[in-house]
Amino acid sequence: MARKQDKSLRELLRVAPGRRVALDDELADSTPGIEERDVATALLELARQQLRELQYKLYADGRFGLLVVLQAMDAGGKDGTIRHVISAFNPQGCHVTGFKAPSAEELEHDFLWRIHQAAPRRGEVGVFNRSHYEDVLVVRVDNLVPRPVWSARYAQINDFERMLVANDIRVVKFMLHVSRKEQRKRLQERLKDPRKLWKFDPADLQKRKQWNAYRAAYEDALAKCSTRHAPWYVIPGDRKWYRNYAVARILVETLEDLPLRWPSAEVDPKKIVIR
Amino acid sequence: MARKQDKSLRELLRVAPGRRVALDDELADSTPGIEERDVATALLELARQQLRELQYKLYADGRFGLLVVLQAMDAGGKDGTIRHVISAFNPQGCHVTGFKAPSAEELEHDFLWRIHQAAPRRGEVGVFNRSHYEDVLVVRVDNLVPRPVWSARYAQINDFERMLVANDIRVVKFMLHVSRKEQRKRLQERLKDPRKLWKFDPADLQKRKQWNAYRAAYEDALAKCSTRHAPWYVIPGDRKWYRNYAVARILVETLEDLPLRWPSAEVDPKKIVIR
Repeated sequence: MARKQDKSLRELLRVAPGRRVALDDELADSTPGIEERDVATALLELARQQLRELQYKLYADGRFGLLVVLQAMDAGGKDGTIRHVISAFNPQGCHVTGFKAPSAEELEHDFLWRIHQAAPRRGEVGVFNRSHYEDVLVVRVDNLVPRPVWSARYAQINDFERMLVANDIRVVKFMLHVSRKEQRKRLQERLKDPRKLWKFDPADLQKRKQWNAYRAAYEDALAKCSTRHAPWYVIPGDRKWYRNYAVARILVETLEDLPLRWPSAEVDPKKIVIR
Repeated sequence: MARKQDKSLRELLRVAPGRRVALDDELADSTPGIEERDVATALLELARQQLRELQYKLYADGRFGLLVVLQAMDAGGKDGTIRHVISAFNPQGCHVTGFKAPSAEELEHDFLWRIHQAAPRRGEVGVFNRSHYEDVLVVRVDNLVPRPVWSARYAQINDFERMLVANDIRVVKFMLHVSRKEQRKRLQERLKDPRKLWKFDPADLQKRKQWNAYRAAYEDALAKCSTRHAPWYVIPGDRKWYRNYAVARILVETLEDLPLRWPSAEVDPKKIVIR
């Protein structure tokens, strides 16, 4: 029964190609598909076990890779999602890459150059904490390149992701969507906790002032780059228990869709004698 | 009290510089410093929590990195150690690199070239599943390069590791030591389990025949390359519970030795108003 309920989660949260999702407060605070926190927490634990099993088979099979893109506003929960969901994977075979402001060398290349280098190999899971989408988000909001340059990137991103998928690297993208109110609460928590205070970056306040410009940039990116081959999911993020559960379940179902199999053995076990 | 007992584990298992450790069956089956499996299992859980805390502070501090080298005979427990110990780390900030036979491009470079590229950055933990030590192990046993070439590498390795440590990347090396009998048992398990059968490589049987040559090569590497700055630990590995506990404890103590501190905040939290 849980199964049937969960099955619809991908459909509930997937952005249909071309559809513009309004990233409003109501959506951030919603919990589509599940109401009870306790149930979600138990199902998260189950999903974590499934992820580990599925990853092991992905690795053994060796024909497919998985790329997971995480995007969010500041304090939107990217780190928490990695800690609570991605940590289920065996670290051997799962690489997390954080993309910060590009280095001087990276800026000399096209914007996908550093991204491509971090793409997962077959058999592995690659997780991007921020990604090439920053090149149509912060770059657009802060006018870091002219409009014709960033506006051409949506199609370039779609082409790039299509190529990955055609080469057996599945792509799944999560926008962790928090409300402005929730962001305020989390930034204030950082100010109060000496273990978190160092994470507080005054630049985050500047970005907070640009909330509406970021929201518009996100809504555009989701509408233009949620494709059949590389879907975007908008994950309501004000409730961490829901966010973790939803990301984990969608990852499970994405991996379950792959026709994974155990490789045939190189040897006939009956004929092997170990001395 | 557990604390006092544990403190001595590093001293019990560290290879003193220049000392030749006999990698015999008795050592593989021993459990220095702890006798009860249940206690070790509980202490492993505690150590995993400590590792996560310490890694977070390592990341926040940003001045030090940690390189963990794992070496073992086939079926010696490298993968299991990653699954049970290394998985405690937040995947963001912990990268596992597996070194297989070098590619054509890698062979065109010196043997440390690919190793150096995978070195952890400050704030991060890097784990090597196999390492530059293969260049004085399989390379030596199979005569892949002339003796003068591999025999010069011990000093080159020591110089390289000294440079890393001088640049604030701490280096800790684990030789997971199993007995020949235990290896046989584990290889046979692979033959019986359809989920593991694909891992069975007939080449492992060839290497098993070269047991004594590998043992001598390991004993030399440990004697020549366990240094004050980059110690080797020989971890008795026949009992997986002991191996996991010992590796985790030694990692905790290695990180506890670092003078980690929370970075001072960029802001005065009292003066920040979030609107």
